[in-house]
Amino acid sequence: MTAKYPLESAYTRIDRDLKRHIATTRKLLMQPSSSQQDLGIRECAELVAEMYESAGCDDVGIIPTKGNPVVYGSCKGASDKTLMAYFMYDTMPFNEPGWSHPPMKAQMVDMKLPAGKVKAIVNRGADNTKGPLAAFLSSVEACNKSVGRPPVNLLLVAEGEEELGSPNLPVYVKKDKKRLSKADACYFPYFGQDSNGRCNLYLGVKGVVYFELECSGKRWGRGPQEFAIHSSNKAWVDSPVWRLVHALKTMTSDDGNTVLIDGFYDDVAPPSAEDGEIIAEAAKRFDPEATKDALKIQRFVISEDDRAALIRAFTYTSTLNIDGIWGGWIEKGSKTVLPHKATCKIDIRVVPDQKKSAMMPLVRKHLDRHGYGDIKMTEVDTGYDWCRCSVREPVVQAVIRSFEDFMERPIVWPTSGGSVPFYVFKRFMGLPFTMGGIGHGGLAHSPNEYMVVEGNKKIAGLAQIEKFMVHFMNEFAQTA
Amino acid sequence: MTAKYPLESAYTRIDRDLKRHIATTRKLLMQPSSSQQDLGIRECAELVAEMYESAGCDDVGIIPTKGNPVVYGSCKGASDKTLMAYFMYDTMPFNEPGWSHPPMKAQMVDMKLPAGKVKAIVNRGADNTKGPLAAFLSSVEACNKSVGRPPVNLLLVAEGEEELGSPNLPVYVKKDKKRLSKADACYFPYFGQDSNGRCNLYLGVKGVVYFELECSGKRWGRGPQEFAIHSSNKAWVDSPVWRLVHALKTMTSDDGNTVLIDGFYDDVAPPSAEDGEIIAEAAKRFDPEATKDALKIQRFVISEDDRAALIRAFTYTSTLNIDGIWGGWIEKGSKTVLPHKATCKIDIRVVPDQKKSAMMPLVRKHLDRHGYGDIKMTEVDTGYDWCRCSVREPVVQAVIRSFEDFMERPIVWPTSGGSVPFYVFKRFMGLPFTMGGIGHGGLAHSPNEYMVVEGNKKIAGLAQIEKFMVHFMNEFAQTA
Repeated sequence: MTAKYPLESAYTRIDRDLKRHIATTRKLLMQPSSSQQDLGIRECAELVAEMYESAGCDDVGIIPTKGNPVVYGSCKGASDKTLMAYFMYDTMPFNEPGWSHPPMKAQMVDMKLPAGKVKAIVNRGADNTKGPLAAFLSSVEACNKSVGRPPVNLLLVAEGEEELGSPNLPVYVKKDKKRLSKADACYFPYFGQDSNGRCNLYLGVKGVVYFELECSGKRWGRGPQEFAIHSSNKAWVDSPVWRLVHALKTMTSDDGNTVLIDGFYDDVAPPSAEDGEIIAEAAKRFDPEATKDALKIQRFVISEDDRAALIRAFTYTSTLNIDGIWGGWIEKGSKTVLPHKATCKIDIRVVPDQKKSAMMPLVRKHLDRHGYGDIKMTEVDTGYDWCRCSVREPVVQAVIRSFEDFMERPIVWPTSGGSVPFYVFKRFMGLPFTMGGIGHGGLAHSPNEYMVVEGNKKIAGLAQIEKFMVHFMNEFAQTA
Repeated sequence: MTAKYPLESAYTRIDRDLKRHIATTRKLLMQPSSSQQDLGIRECAELVAEMYESAGCDDVGIIPTKGNPVVYGSCKGASDKTLMAYFMYDTMPFNEPGWSHPPMKAQMVDMKLPAGKVKAIVNRGADNTKGPLAAFLSSVEACNKSVGRPPVNLLLVAEGEEELGSPNLPVYVKKDKKRLSKADACYFPYFGQDSNGRCNLYLGVKGVVYFELECSGKRWGRGPQEFAIHSSNKAWVDSPVWRLVHALKTMTSDDGNTVLIDGFYDDVAPPSAEDGEIIAEAAKRFDPEATKDALKIQRFVISEDDRAALIRAFTYTSTLNIDGIWGGWIEKGSKTVLPHKATCKIDIRVVPDQKKSAMMPLVRKHLDRHGYGDIKMTEVDTGYDWCRCSVREPVVQAVIRSFEDFMERPIVWPTSGGSVPFYVFKRFMGLPFTMGGIGHGGLAHSPNEYMVVEGNKKIAGLAQIEKFMVHFMNEFAQTA
């Protein structure tokens, strides 16, 4: 057991440096790093490396991979415990319509949330997850500048391909296993409060698979072959667009919510006893209204009256989602064409005990069996498997205690709906993991993505978020 | 009866001026006039007016409408007969991929067709229908410069909104009815030869309706409302894209070829006795291979063995075609979003005795009855009704005789698959009409649209096309 860590010194430093921390956060957000579009990746990796250095880390390096580089760093801590912090420095694209503020200017705006008035930064990546990354590095910096070291040894791994399915993370982790194997647990900084201030902790993540289906006259042997032709020919020529529509319709129920692919749900495990308790507990406190407000939706697929059912739906449902669909003339006006192909993008979220690798073959078999053998299926990113961690793990308990000390006991969810490549650390190195923290952000993958910087009684501001992170590291240092 | 028209003088003049005629044709083609994109319309109208003047026409005027202007002109002829020539000076857009030659440089290229080697101009609008427009004006010019006048009085009407469904043509025709009512028939210049040289004459056109269907979370009250949200939410939020897929699937048979909308085919009239004879005659000579080659398709919806059935399919089928479909993330990569809306563009081709105005209401009723009352339906262009003319009409007989004199007796089709707003002239002024001529072009609405300029034994070149037009005017002058 190490000597008691002087948390207050670090907290004072955070308060003193807050303005600079906000400036650093804004600088990181304003640096584009859209991996889908290969935009600003190298520059962002270099900026993250600089931030590691400024935070007082050692061994800082930009490690090349076959794709985007990993930014590595380490930091000696005040205890024997070693925490690996996993970050992503890439973001989704930011060229969609609907932004009320410029997507890359990190403007500070007044915002009225169900939890009350706050000030927030609006920018792509603010919530997901360059905001939490910057906050964590600021908290490390404050520790180093005040106490001299953080409460635990740190290994920092920032990847730039999370939004591409982290194709090169496993390769990197295998290669750098010697250094990384010193870690006792993995942590992914994340804003865990919802818009009315409720704290949420996710024990795991779903896996994800992403592919395209293309129906072309060329492969079909019917319809236009190389280009769209005059639509008058529909009278005697087949349509690849209609074919894609009819192929897709076989894959879900009329409401689009139940997947009709044979075997799709076969490996879905029922909630464990532990999960049953967790869900029952979560159902007591989960507020569907806050989620509806955050997503700006009017209703869920199922009734809100049964909150446990709603939570089960969110955490246990494996989904087949159409992310995009296109074909033919999609600009203004009335170009009359019979298109030669139509394409859609699909993601499948994978839950325990489904296997990521089984999903595309199931879709392929379904298409073949329904006579759509010609429809081309292309993996767009490698995706990854689901990953879960028990609520009893020390690192999870440390984050729960931190929530309680700073805000309230979090609502614990068996998984988030989203995906993070924890499987890499858990499968290759047997590391337990947790994700989260206080603070609030929203509209990940949507226009007007934001993170709260000046909070109120219910929602943490940036200083409090950073203090939480120091506190969490200290709690983890004291675990058995 | 007027004195015999000195055709040879005009023909000699055509031969002498051919180089200049080609240059004029290329100039017209290279002037953009994409009505969908409002690109170059005014400039093209001015160029057409100049070409009227150069051809020796009087009363040339650019007549404003609520949309794109009509270019009017007239020309005193050598007989009492008056022909109204209808043209369109607008084209489809030319920004689709797949052009082997620049779409607006009117390059002269060597081309190998089933009928043999030719030289052709590749350009948007070459076939549909600025090529035929230029050829007709060149033929008039040759008459005026040689004989002093063409064989018939001419009224020239060029509109710039054909590809938008000619919304302002009826308004213009009503307003200018006094001048236009002097016409005895209407003629639309067109290249009627296929790629192996077969001559085709279409006695009519289908009508067309063009609209968009938009499925949005906003109108539905389910799913994302204002923007796409993180796709992890598919587990508890509905998808407007799946909804559009399932709405569309109710509208056609699995193969996309039979429309399942109640009442859709109710008003389709069976072939008349006259059409039955025409189809039987056409089936003897129609070569499906040439059409397949022209469209670069491998097969038709139905077997080619029964040519009469194939011709009936083309001429009598009312179609529901998806011109375009789009929603969500349609760029490169794997943005994981649950989209808030999906949209498609649809055109319906209207055949006797369907009514254009009945079609959108039928689709609306179908959607409502299937529970898709929230799917928004927007007319994109006004469209128009079908129009047919008997093969016995003198103007049709004149064009048939011209075909015979220049090439061969044409294969006569009850209608083309495409649409031309003849109904305006037929309904408002009772004018019989015909369309066509020798010459060959292809790939209308597709990349690499072309018109043959230097032909061979089987396919007419530009000089022959222009001579045909003079000949046709003279044939028409002699009709009763």
